[in-house]
Amino acid sequence: MSVDDAMSSLRTLPYEDLGFAKIDHHRPLRTGFPEVVLGKGKRPEQVAAIVASLTGRGHPVLVTKTDPLAYEAVVRQTPEANYNDLARAIVVPGPHSAPSREGVLVVTAGTADLPVAEEACLTAELMGSRVTRINDVGVAGLHRVMDALPNLQEAKVIILVAGMEAALVSVVAGLVSVPVVAVPTSVGYGSSFEGLAALLGMLNSCAPGVAVVNIDNGFGAGYLAAQILRNGYQAPD
Amino acid sequence: MSVDDAMSSLRTLPYEDLGFAKIDHHRPLRTGFPEVVLGKGKRPEQVAAIVASLTGRGHPVLVTKTDPLAYEAVVRQTPEANYNDLARAIVVPGPHSAPSREGVLVVTAGTADLPVAEEACLTAELMGSRVTRINDVGVAGLHRVMDALPNLQEAKVIILVAGMEAALVSVVAGLVSVPVVAVPTSVGYGSSFEGLAALLGMLNSCAPGVAVVNIDNGFGAGYLAAQILRNGYQAPD
Amino acid sequence: MSVDDAMSSLRTLPYEDLGFAKIDHHRPLRTGFPEVVLGKGKRPEQVAAIVASLTGRGHPVLVTKTDPLAYEAVVRQTPEANYNDLARAIVVPGPHSAPSREGVLVVTAGTADLPVAEEACLTAELMGSRVTRINDVGVAGLHRVMDALPNLQEAKVIILVAGMEAALVSVVAGLVSVPVVAVPTSVGYGSSFEGLAALLGMLNSCAPGVAVVNIDNGFGAGYLAAQILRNGYQAPD
Amino acid sequence: MSVDDAMSSLRTLPYEDLGFAKIDHHRPLRTGFPEVVLGKGKRPEQVAAIVASLTGRGHPVLVTKTDPLAYEAVVRQTPEANYNDLARAIVVPGPHSAPSREGVLVVTAGTADLPVAEEACLTAELMGSRVTRINDVGVAGLHRVMDALPNLQEAKVIILVAGMEAALVSVVAGLVSVPVVAVPTSVGYGSSFEGLAALLGMLNSCAPGVAVVNIDNGFGAGYLAAQILRNGYQAPD
Amino acid sequence: MSVDDAMSSLRTLPYEDLGFAKIDHHRPLRTGFPEVVLGKGKRPEQVAAIVASLTGRGHPVLVTKTDPLAYEAVVRQTPEANYNDLARAIVVPGPHSAPSREGVLVVTAGTADLPVAEEACLTAELMGSRVTRINDVGVAGLHRVMDALPNLQEAKVIILVAGMEAALVSVVAGLVSVPVVAVPTSVGYGSSFEGLAALLGMLNSCAPGVAVVNIDNGFGAGYLAAQILRNGYQAPD
Amino acid sequence: MSVDDAMSSLRTLPYEDLGFAKIDHHRPLRTGFPEVVLGKGKRPEQVAAIVASLTGRGHPVLVTKTDPLAYEAVVRQTPEANYNDLARAIVVPGPHSAPSREGVLVVTAGTADLPVAEEACLTAELMGSRVTRINDVGVAGLHRVMDALPNLQEAKVIILVAGMEAALVSVVAGLVSVPVVAVPTSVGYGSSFEGLAALLGMLNSCAPGVAVVNIDNGFGAGYLAAQILRNGYQAPD
Amino acid sequence: MSVDDAMSSLRTLPYEDLGFAKIDHHRPLRTGFPEVVLGKGKRPEQVAAIVASLTGRGHPVLVTKTDPLAYEAVVRQTPEANYNDLARAIVVPGPHSAPSREGVLVVTAGTADLPVAEEACLTAELMGSRVTRINDVGVAGLHRVMDALPNLQEAKVIILVAGMEAALVSVVAGLVSVPVVAVPTSVGYGSSFEGLAALLGMLNSCAPGVAVVNIDNGFGAGYLAAQILRNGYQAPD
Amino acid sequence: MSVDDAMSSLRTLPYEDLGFAKIDHHRPLRTGFPEVVLGKGKRPEQVAAIVASLTGRGHPVLVTKTDPLAYEAVVRQTPEANYNDLARAIVVPGPHSAPSREGVLVVTAGTADLPVAEEACLTAELMGSRVTRINDVGVAGLHRVMDALPNLQEAKVIILVAGMEAALVSVVAGLVSVPVVAVPTSVGYGSSFEGLAALLGMLNSCAPGVAVVNIDNGFGAGYLAAQILRNGYQAPD
Repeated sequence: MSVDDAMSSLRTLPYEDLGFAKIDHHRPLRTGFPEVVLGKGKRPEQVAAIVASLTGRGHPVLVTKTDPLAYEAVVRQTPEANYNDLARAIVVPGPHSAPSREGVLVVTAGTADLPVAEEACLTAELMGSRVTRINDVGVAGLHRVMDALPNLQEAKVIILVAGMEAALVSVVAGLVSVPVVAVPTSVGYGSSFEGLAALLGMLNSCAPGVAVVNIDNGFGAGYLAAQILRNGYQAPD
Repeated sequence: MSVDDAMSSLRTLPYEDLGFAKIDHHRPLRTGFPEVVLGKGKRPEQVAAIVASLTGRGHPVLVTKTDPLAYEAVVRQTPEANYNDLARAIVVPGPHSAPSREGVLVVTAGTADLPVAEEACLTAELMGSRVTRINDVGVAGLHRVMDALPNLQEAKVIILVAGMEAALVSVVAGLVSVPVVAVPTSVGYGSSFEGLAALLGMLNSCAPGVAVVNIDNGFGAGYLAAQILRNGYQAPD
Repeated sequence: MSVDDAMSSLRTLPYEDLGFAKIDHHRPLRTGFPEVVLGKGKRPEQVAAIVASLTGRGHPVLVTKTDPLAYEAVVRQTPEANYNDLARAIVVPGPHSAPSREGVLVVTAGTADLPVAEEACLTAELMGSRVTRINDVGVAGLHRVMDALPNLQEAKVIILVAGMEAALVSVVAGLVSVPVVAVPTSVGYGSSFEGLAALLGMLNSCAPGVAVVNIDNGFGAGYLAAQILRNGYQAPD
Repeated sequence: MSVDDAMSSLRTLPYEDLGFAKIDHHRPLRTGFPEVVLGKGKRPEQVAAIVASLTGRGHPVLVTKTDPLAYEAVVRQTPEANYNDLARAIVVPGPHSAPSREGVLVVTAGTADLPVAEEACLTAELMGSRVTRINDVGVAGLHRVMDALPNLQEAKVIILVAGMEAALVSVVAGLVSVPVVAVPTSVGYGSSFEGLAALLGMLNSCAPGVAVVNIDNGFGAGYLAAQILRNGYQAPD
Repeated sequence: MSVDDAMSSLRTLPYEDLGFAKIDHHRPLRTGFPEVVLGKGKRPEQVAAIVASLTGRGHPVLVTKTDPLAYEAVVRQTPEANYNDLARAIVVPGPHSAPSREGVLVVTAGTADLPVAEEACLTAELMGSRVTRINDVGVAGLHRVMDALPNLQEAKVIILVAGMEAALVSVVAGLVSVPVVAVPTSVGYGSSFEGLAALLGMLNSCAPGVAVVNIDNGFGAGYLAAQILRNGYQAPD
Repeated sequence: MSVDDAMSSLRTLPYEDLGFAKIDHHRPLRTGFPEVVLGKGKRPEQVAAIVASLTGRGHPVLVTKTDPLAYEAVVRQTPEANYNDLARAIVVPGPHSAPSREGVLVVTAGTADLPVAEEACLTAELMGSRVTRINDVGVAGLHRVMDALPNLQEAKVIILVAGMEAALVSVVAGLVSVPVVAVPTSVGYGSSFEGLAALLGMLNSCAPGVAVVNIDNGFGAGYLAAQILRNGYQAPD
Repeated sequence: MSVDDAMSSLRTLPYEDLGFAKIDHHRPLRTGFPEVVLGKGKRPEQVAAIVASLTGRGHPVLVTKTDPLAYEAVVRQTPEANYNDLARAIVVPGPHSAPSREGVLVVTAGTADLPVAEEACLTAELMGSRVTRINDVGVAGLHRVMDALPNLQEAKVIILVAGMEAALVSVVAGLVSVPVVAVPTSVGYGSSFEGLAALLGMLNSCAPGVAVVNIDNGFGAGYLAAQILRNGYQAPD
Repeated sequence: MSVDDAMSSLRTLPYEDLGFAKIDHHRPLRTGFPEVVLGKGKRPEQVAAIVASLTGRGHPVLVTKTDPLAYEAVVRQTPEANYNDLARAIVVPGPHSAPSREGVLVVTAGTADLPVAEEACLTAELMGSRVTRINDVGVAGLHRVMDALPNLQEAKVIILVAGMEAALVSVVAGLVSVPVVAVPTSVGYGSSFEGLAALLGMLNSCAPGVAVVNIDNGFGAGYLAAQILRNGYQAPD
């Protein structure tokens, strides 16, 4: 493909302009997943309009970091929308959303990391991955890590969700030979500085093969894991 | 595999103790790559002893963030070692190091990012990947990004190396549907704060599918990319 | 003009002392715009008294970062005052406030940046500029940037409002040859650190011609843009 | 112009690929100024090759934050290059570089800010502006500010270069009605934190009409000032 | 006085133990002012008990950074206590609290700095100083500073209360030859980072003769100013 | 004990999986204390289930940084649970919880440090230590420190709880020859930055023999002190 | 004095323009001390020219944070200049520089704080104060503080110079009733973060009456102390 | 002992004043160890004078963070002094320095942590402890931790020395029931920010029983460990 062809394919990509938002209906075709909506900072009626515009085009729709108020506005226009209370997410299921690719393992270091982990699971599942969950695997009780070893060694990609000092990442990444997607969480207090300690810990991991995403960014981790998993992914016809 | 079996396999892993370092000869078998040596903070004679211990076991050896002094000490004991001046790395080639898997693309935002990019290329190649390089693709000249579009769309995993504000990451990750490994560099001045601006920019990218590693961590990016690439990797017999 | 003349002109500038505030009625003559009132940190009755003192002198009055409570206090004394809910601003329109100079373009990277953008638009319009608005032009969907290209290339000064990693700034500033006023916003979460990531990204932009203002400072951007636009501006008689 | 036309004009932009750098020869036509070269982080021979590629095309060439070693390499290939010791910059003068537009005033708060100010002056002059310089106008001696008042009030755009607490910015911006481009410098010690105090001071200025650039970024300030100055600038035929 | 004598005078200092607090009744004799009570972080009943213990010993009592709830608890036990709503302080007036030493001038940069300034005034007055107040002297309107010049030049010690960039400090300290006590406030938004910008600005002031206290620490400034003022202060018999 | 034996003992450690949490019933045997539950970030019903699972196994149970809502949920299932309002902790007393080892001294610098100190006391007592408390020993009143000298010199391990500048640590550690466990608290305002000032002060103490724990981590301090105290501790049969 | 008179007196203040610096010869008359020269960031020949311009006008001249190279340049033009190796300062003694006012006490916490302390002493002495020095009074050896008690209680103003955690400030300020000028130093390592720990410690001191200056700013402390000391100071005729 | 007695014992403590330093000869009696000398920031001749003053009093002398230049000055006056090149420390052995108490285990996470670990070992040994060393126990190779398990479970106090993300701390502290003294090191690069990542990781460890000291503070860790170890320590007669 020449530069000209590349440019041409780019310039013809369609989108819908709602005034306060531009909806990219081509994105599912291009990347295999609809534009996810970050709920934070948007008004309920804006979320509802965006969801309505994205719904019914053969793909699931996902709104992250949202709340019941936005859901109320959404469900009035889009009755098939569900609210996932743990992940604080709105989901409109698509027609083909049964997960089919095995191999994503999501592990949390503690109970308080569950909401972020759930956001990751939801995302990966909507992108066609089958997800296994293991919770509360703190390294201070190494036998719990050991008990998860069979799961860790079977996974094709591992998402680790941890706050505080996030030591789990180095321990697990040293035990496996597949990519580890590390999600720092704002779980902790004092000098955890809202997730900074976990973020720095993950970035400085002595084990190679670790990819880091933003603090509390379960969506980003789920997306990346699903992307790594689907080899030769083809957009639906 | 039961927990007991997992534990058993763990406890029998061999290593060699040099006193100041423990060499993990089992690692190549377990993860498909020898323990890379971070040269920074180690004395030349320590680097030399570690390299000597790792050499000759059927795998390449890599020392990162090192210098000519350490290389001098290494080459006295290990004459087949080479020094890569651009990446500031020592490499002892292994018997089977011809890259065979296609699909890693390494892109720099500017000329000053080259040393970190070279570290990434070197690592991915030693792990069996074939690497394509494109340099100096700053987003302030968007046509240069566009010219790279065919390469970007062919790649199976993309490593982006960028300092300053690292805007390249969001632009590229929005154009492709494969994982992007983002390496912030300490290139810049003033409020780049030795790579902090680039790191935060990458972590907060509005495009999904972005994995971030430590500032200047070319090795980590190359390792992760090769790991993502090799589906069904098997350790050499 | 000699130093003595300069000093003399300075010392005779009038102001009105309300006790808790000094109102600078000369400012419109000197700078072409009345002293804007930062609502944050002031009590409703203080805001009301300041607005009353500034109103009716042939200039519009603007209160930024305020709330409905302050507006209630203001409108009791100044019935012609309006409240702009999106920008969280109080406006008392002046007699000559019809915008007459073309060329300010205000672009947001996302829907959540709208309140800050609206503050910028309001300010530039009150200073006599005609403002074009384009919303939700994230660089992760480059075709949306491309679609805005005609507007970008017609503008005489561009205000970019972006949170998260603010990559839009480098992309746009590389496409145009006019000044770009960049407003980082506190939109984002985790390591956006309340707008720090966007601020650093903008300051370190690889594209020249970028002016940065404080986080969420829509007013400052609108003011600067209008100031750049009005060549040979003369204070009203 | 339609989106297609915009895209077409973009995709045909030429550049030259040196391997380690892509030189954008179209840039002078597009923005009215050649791509400036940031010397920091580039090897002398890389700087020399880039300068050689940019020279002789009817435009001046500028290398910032460089050193005598790079100059030595440059001058061997490009004998008409000069080294500005104060600004630490290499300049290859262009055929039409006589400044012709009046109105840029560059003011420093102290003697130690001179190198950054000189970089700003050089840039603005190469872009066709006539520059007036005033040095060492600290606000702790307000009569020195007052003495500069006639110059301040005549300028069409003012560049303020200041380290430490950078109070000069608020004082000057309150005295004039033209845009002020503020350059924080790393001048100072202790809690100036390499320019952070000045940067924050400028971003939080209580006076409107202030545009901030990166710490020590004299080039960016000179570029922005020249850009603001040239109304209706047309690229040379 | 020998070391032994010094120690003896120290060891005999009395205090009262309330269990959760130790009240230092000797402090007024030693330093000329009772132990001020920081209200923040104490429960209403704790504040009330401490105030009751300190009251009636011939000195005023001051509680800072408190609230109406604590005042309610205090006034039940100590009916002569007053609540200063602006300064958020509780005051129990002492028998001799009429201010008698002239020379403290308290200046604010803006209306929102008033609560901190009032805390400073209250403290200095309770320590026997006569305080002059000037509000809203932003340097962006230099004629307002000039109008205050006679007061500035008459003062024996000046307290400057400023948020945002705090440029007022350098301007005023350059105009006078007496000590300036600078109080940064958390007034501002965005990159003011809750007063950090003002704090750094004050610490890096280019004018000598500036003493800085903690962010929002009006009490500390009032105390220091009164201490500087009272030459040859003698504790009451 | 051989490596194999060590591994074997590790792999057989029991735990109970609640789905959202893994309860480590072996921990009391292994470390002499049950897994403490960090209440923060857990839902009331999760806290209640964890407490129920831990209760009745011959050990006390402790939940820190919790609230009355969680206690309500807990007490419904575990009626013997108590709520310590000052420490914000839930305690289920164990059968043998009478403190028996003398020597832990807990000292606070101010009244507002009491909640953190109480968490430390509670923890040390549950671990079998007898605790002496001294409150409000600020170094600005050195005679109060002196009055505590006999207690300080009798203690076997000292916990110091201090916010603000935490100077108490250096003074006390210089007076004694036993370990000092320093707990920074988030008490303070302005540039205390939520405990950062106290944390840095403690880490940089000029007196040796100081161990620091996380900001507000009373539990960690109490645990460490009890651990230091119990020489030759044996897990109960 | 009226506003007009104040302004008039301001505008007629003389200064000498060296091109790269403006020398304020009126300053000694206005503030009782010549403009001190911050050597850092100035070239030797610039320092020499400034010193030559300031010398011989009846006042001492002081250059701080300078080095032997600058001194060499200075002494060629100004042979009476001395170099103080400990304080890294150049001094040109004035005709009346014999210290005459008693009462400044300069105390260091450790030997490494001596250079900053010496800068403070030099400044205060040049401004006419008699200075007493006490070195190495760390609070970890409280008897050393006690031994200094007579000096502390005789002083009229105390300068405390301390790095690391700077606990000395709270201890001393609690023992005296005179102003304490606290100078944080960059002495320390690790988490002292170049003086940040000391700076925060001093700003958050629990003892009132503490004025803080910039890290390593001995000059500022000496200036402030001398200013506090000289009551009714009159400029020399 | 009464307060008076405590005070009396304090005031009579002897020290020797060298002018630039006060030597505390009583300290060995009071705390069981001589005042250690921090070499950093002191001139060679100052170090030599302090060592000479401390030597020959029946105790070893230790200088940390020093260099060969200081050692040269020391050995001229104190020929029995040794230089430990790895720990960068000067040691003058005392008459009774044979280690006698078993139980300190010092573990490093990597080879580059050795200098800090050696400083800890040296200190603990000089204080009478017998020290076992284990190096390079990174958690990414968990079998190396497992191999150390027997040593870990035999130790009475464990010093962990780790840079980068310091995950070793949580793993080890979860395996043992004795106090763990954690020393963050500045080993690492990029976002390790000179040890900040390791420091935060250790402070936020999910395992209880962890005491943290300053970055690179091997001395502090060794001192604390020896202090914990020596139960019922008595000063030599």
